[in-house]
Amino acid sequence: MWFTSDNAGPAAPEVMAGLARANEGPARAYGADAIMERVTAQVRALFEAPDAAVHLVATGTAANALALACLCPPWATIYVHREAHTACDECAAPEFFTGGAKLTLLDGPDGRIAPASLAAALAAAAPAGVHNVQPGALSLTNATEAGTIYRPADVAALARMAKARGLPVHMDGARFANAVARLGCSPAELTRAAGVDALSFGGTKNGLLGVEAVILFDPGRSWEFELRRKRGGHLVSKHRYLSAQMEAYLTGGLWLRLAAQANAMADRLAAGLRGAGAELLYPVEANMMFVRLSRAQHLRLAAHGASYYHWGPEPGAEGDPAEMSACRLVCGWQTTAAEVDRFVELAAG
Amino acid sequence: MWFTSDNAGPAAPEVMAGLARANEGPARAYGADAIMERVTAQVRALFEAPDAAVHLVATGTAANALALACLCPPWATIYVHREAHTACDECAAPEFFTGGAKLTLLDGPDGRIAPASLAAALAAAAPAGVHNVQPGALSLTNATEAGTIYRPADVAALARMAKARGLPVHMDGARFANAVARLGCSPAELTRAAGVDALSFGGTKNGLLGVEAVILFDPGRSWEFELRRKRGGHLVSKHRYLSAQMEAYLTGGLWLRLAAQANAMADRLAAGLRGAGAELLYPVEANMMFVRLSRAQHLRLAAHGASYYHWGPEPGAEGDPAEMSACRLVCGWQTTAAEVDRFVELAAG
Amino acid sequence: MWFTSDNAGPAAPEVMAGLARANEGPARAYGADAIMERVTAQVRALFEAPDAAVHLVATGTAANALALACLCPPWATIYVHREAHTACDECAAPEFFTGGAKLTLLDGPDGRIAPASLAAALAAAAPAGVHNVQPGALSLTNATEAGTIYRPADVAALARMAKARGLPVHMDGARFANAVARLGCSPAELTRAAGVDALSFGGTKNGLLGVEAVILFDPGRSWEFELRRKRGGHLVSKHRYLSAQMEAYLTGGLWLRLAAQANAMADRLAAGLRGAGAELLYPVEANMMFVRLSRAQHLRLAAHGASYYHWGPEPGAEGDPAEMSACRLVCGWQTTAAEVDRFVELAAG
Amino acid sequence: MWFTSDNAGPAAPEVMAGLARANEGPARAYGADAIMERVTAQVRALFEAPDAAVHLVATGTAANALALACLCPPWATIYVHREAHTACDECAAPEFFTGGAKLTLLDGPDGRIAPASLAAALAAAAPAGVHNVQPGALSLTNATEAGTIYRPADVAALARMAKARGLPVHMDGARFANAVARLGCSPAELTRAAGVDALSFGGTKNGLLGVEAVILFDPGRSWEFELRRKRGGHLVSKHRYLSAQMEAYLTGGLWLRLAAQANAMADRLAAGLRGAGAELLYPVEANMMFVRLSRAQHLRLAAHGASYYHWGPEPGAEGDPAEMSACRLVCGWQTTAAEVDRFVELAAG
Repeated sequence: MWFTSDNAGPAAPEVMAGLARANEGPARAYGADAIMERVTAQVRALFEAPDAAVHLVATGTAANALALACLCPPWATIYVHREAHTACDECAAPEFFTGGAKLTLLDGPDGRIAPASLAAALAAAAPAGVHNVQPGALSLTNATEAGTIYRPADVAALARMAKARGLPVHMDGARFANAVARLGCSPAELTRAAGVDALSFGGTKNGLLGVEAVILFDPGRSWEFELRRKRGGHLVSKHRYLSAQMEAYLTGGLWLRLAAQANAMADRLAAGLRGAGAELLYPVEANMMFVRLSRAQHLRLAAHGASYYHWGPEPGAEGDPAEMSACRLVCGWQTTAAEVDRFVELAAG
Repeated sequence: MWFTSDNAGPAAPEVMAGLARANEGPARAYGADAIMERVTAQVRALFEAPDAAVHLVATGTAANALALACLCPPWATIYVHREAHTACDECAAPEFFTGGAKLTLLDGPDGRIAPASLAAALAAAAPAGVHNVQPGALSLTNATEAGTIYRPADVAALARMAKARGLPVHMDGARFANAVARLGCSPAELTRAAGVDALSFGGTKNGLLGVEAVILFDPGRSWEFELRRKRGGHLVSKHRYLSAQMEAYLTGGLWLRLAAQANAMADRLAAGLRGAGAELLYPVEANMMFVRLSRAQHLRLAAHGASYYHWGPEPGAEGDPAEMSACRLVCGWQTTAAEVDRFVELAAG
Repeated sequence: MWFTSDNAGPAAPEVMAGLARANEGPARAYGADAIMERVTAQVRALFEAPDAAVHLVATGTAANALALACLCPPWATIYVHREAHTACDECAAPEFFTGGAKLTLLDGPDGRIAPASLAAALAAAAPAGVHNVQPGALSLTNATEAGTIYRPADVAALARMAKARGLPVHMDGARFANAVARLGCSPAELTRAAGVDALSFGGTKNGLLGVEAVILFDPGRSWEFELRRKRGGHLVSKHRYLSAQMEAYLTGGLWLRLAAQANAMADRLAAGLRGAGAELLYPVEANMMFVRLSRAQHLRLAAHGASYYHWGPEPGAEGDPAEMSACRLVCGWQTTAAEVDRFVELAAG
Repeated sequence: MWFTSDNAGPAAPEVMAGLARANEGPARAYGADAIMERVTAQVRALFEAPDAAVHLVATGTAANALALACLCPPWATIYVHREAHTACDECAAPEFFTGGAKLTLLDGPDGRIAPASLAAALAAAAPAGVHNVQPGALSLTNATEAGTIYRPADVAALARMAKARGLPVHMDGARFANAVARLGCSPAELTRAAGVDALSFGGTKNGLLGVEAVILFDPGRSWEFELRRKRGGHLVSKHRYLSAQMEAYLTGGLWLRLAAQANAMADRLAAGLRGAGAELLYPVEANMMFVRLSRAQHLRLAAHGASYYHWGPEPGAEGDPAEMSACRLVCGWQTTAAEVDRFVELAAG
């Protein structure tokens, strides 16, 4: 019963098979492999973006930081949600790659930037004289760190506000597949058509070994991205092994199938926990949830080998069994109904 | 007949098998996987360095730049050979990761820093007042970009000069295995015992999909390295897939067997080409060589599908068939005697 | 009637005389001038810090950013008040000089960091794993941007919390003289003795042409500071002209006399405005205040040539004469009682 | 007898008078002062560049590094002479301000970049793939660090080569006045008309207390420059004191008179030393020279209080009186014929 993170799960068999297939004979290095040509075509078709530039990197932090560095100069600020991965979990990678830009932390319920919070921040920056950092870019996380999602209209509303100030829009899509699988919309609707300029299209959390695509809908930034990727140490030499993962991921809708399975297990888990009287902190819209459980529940689950991330310190054996504390539960493509049901059963007591 | 680069070759079957084995069930992310514990123990044993810190990254540029950033402050300079990968082929990654340090380019025949060149540079920096960048670190590439190697005594002589000025020593070991396989020395002799403080221990060019270990013989720099790795976007979440490659590489001496095979093919190729009257630009001490061939030879080889890297522009069909131009030929673990012999036969004409 | 900024005022006659005296014959450049030796001795005596390192720069932003870069590594965060100059008015200079550190914005009334806000931020950073920026430094502005001051006990309380987490403490003392003049304490009490490690000791806003001293109570960071100053372009060649200003400033208590005069004029102005029914937004503890005035008052003052900074857009002629809006009024050493009284008279109507 | 540096001399009386005049009443801060408006007009007229952007900073390193950061992205390289101030005497300020660009060191006799050296470097960078730093900018120092000058045709020849590769051209004009005074050309001829895009127009070494103007002939880069200047801590608040120096400098041709006087003294000194049998290392074309003198000469000069900079360690009393060693002698606007003649007399023995 591992609900620790979607990083804890294995890679999908189709992906491993793709890797094995790629491991034949010689291949051109540094992104010039034949598989990458096919990946680029796949991404362009999927996003209905025949000109988009597509580049692969091995980590989500690299994808975000490199994309943001192409969008935001060092003397500007990136508007993000206060709980965004870029703000909280990347050890200042955006600051490093941009050369010292700021992040302006915005508020909003359920992990989503409230339009009023963005409006207020942009208004406060309205004079933006030489003493102030300049407005630089907007970055949205979809699905969010709270396990919720932005609909196309939500993205469009925020992007419009950004565009009115001349700001480009980035989407951190580490769990983009979970958002699309939930919404049933097209990838283009949730990005390009809604005003997104650059997307970190995640694969690692959804069945790959470790690949993210950065999709630049404006290919004019592509060469700069490539140079930044190289000097960031993120241009992989035996690139075919990244390409092969992404090709398998995009073939036959695997990416959506894996995400839909993870979402379905999250729904099942959420329903079960609600039935057991647990309090869910946010709507469950993707593949993870934040739940408050009692110390007794936590201890029982731990005793039976359930693994997950406590929000705050792990509850020790000492203390009031009724004391509540929060935890994060993440489902992956590999999560089974049996695991979910066993977890719920243990939580129910 | 691919002699383009050791980046063009596939991964070794043992490595693919290791990956497959690692792809079972859940695993802790970000380097806390059980395989990594074993890798650390393997590396420490191999280098007779029970305290060494060991960290994995996906590219050689990341390994070098992160290691150098831990050794050299932004107001200092790194002494490297004029042809070093760090100087020529990393798009200023060391400058980026150090926060703006310099590289001081040293000379020396056959891709090796001449002690006199290092001595002169250090002497010139002797006052190193506040207007000058300070001496920062020495970085050696072994095997070198010319396909030659530093012996333990060579390393020790240069390291002693650096240490006398208080400078730490880095070794870019993208082809470290080829050097050790050639020398028959212990890994410790060629590094720690000779004064190396930090080693980029390469795997990618020698049969892995893409993993390099950074070995810090002084573990006091380990936490800084981890923070730099994270904010550089180089902390891989599903880390088990890096660990598994490295574990397979270090198990049963695979790393040395693969390198020895590549070296042997390079020897066979060099001998064959010399027999065919070709001029080799440097001693062949690792798995690659630089050779001057005539236009006629280049065209004949190309016509038969030989692939390799021209030093300078690719020779076109027009022109004097006797005109000589240089090329680089790299053998990998997968290079076969038949390929080598066919290449020689074609070159011989 | 200029109440725009303490940057708008002229230099004190004693300072101009010092400059003229310094302009004789040759002098050693780059801080090796004889005047600087005397300045160092003056500063050490004033702060009862016989080992302190003292370095001069031409701007407050340089003083702050260079000091902070010596205290806080690139992967850490600096705790500052949400309205601090470092956060709002330096166009990300701290981010630039530190190499990409963050600023964590703290709250607190009247421009002062509330201890609870610092405590909460430090507690939130308590695990500070590799994904998070590390706690880096605490920076206090004294006098604050709201025109209030921290007492020695206030500084000590915050510094103790920082020190308990191993964090060094910086004080942005662009208006340090105003704080000391108000408190009547010794400079050492408000800094060293209270736990401050590095002080930006301002002169520019208080009668100099443009000099700030960075005082490092731990001289171990001095050489790093010098190298950072040089590569930041802040090592002035004809340094005697900085030294001469600072020497005049510290001679015979000029710095305190100038600040006391500015404070006294601020008191007079505040009293007058309160008498005229104006609302002051913060306690007036240094040489500036934030006041709400009606449109009618703003227009009358403008018509008679009063110059000051509106908080928000300048009120136009159109609109409700009774509508209130805020402004900032700053007194300098050169502000006269007549100016103040005339301003009050106009505000009173 | 100070021939140490043009940084060692005092400020010209006209400049001090300008400062005193500026010290009246209030003035707008941060470059919005009325004097700066006049300075901008003066510079535009002088350079026949009605659109040029003009910005002042306090140091030459700041002028160079900020200008270069506007011209060269972080993944590119700046072509400079091996002995340039930017390469040798700025503690990696260009690397810092550009965010990690490189400097490519070119050769050439007498401190001037040889066209063949630039051509070779550009040719070597011709492919400039993603692994290599890209060609970024050309930077010329005029007068050079060797005390020689580039003529307009020299500048134009090098600039043409740069422009053919799309590279902008910067001139470090710390001693620009000495070059113009010597050549008798117009400032425009030596810069704009010859292909220079950005000029660091020095004042500090030629009679100011400390001001350099950065002149951007393409004003499109002006706002970026202003933001970089601010976040570099180089936007001076009481800016009128910079403006006033520059205004005095440009009024009535003072800048050229001061430089002409320094040049004339250098000529007199060079002639005298040649007459005394000294060997001059480079043509004397500006206000400084490099001379080889015997130990006996050095000791005699020192005994009589002559101050200058030895190239290499100061000759001690022990040793062969005939042993030769080099020194640098710099004349300033304040150097007198009497000083020069006394120096020559002592050298002659």
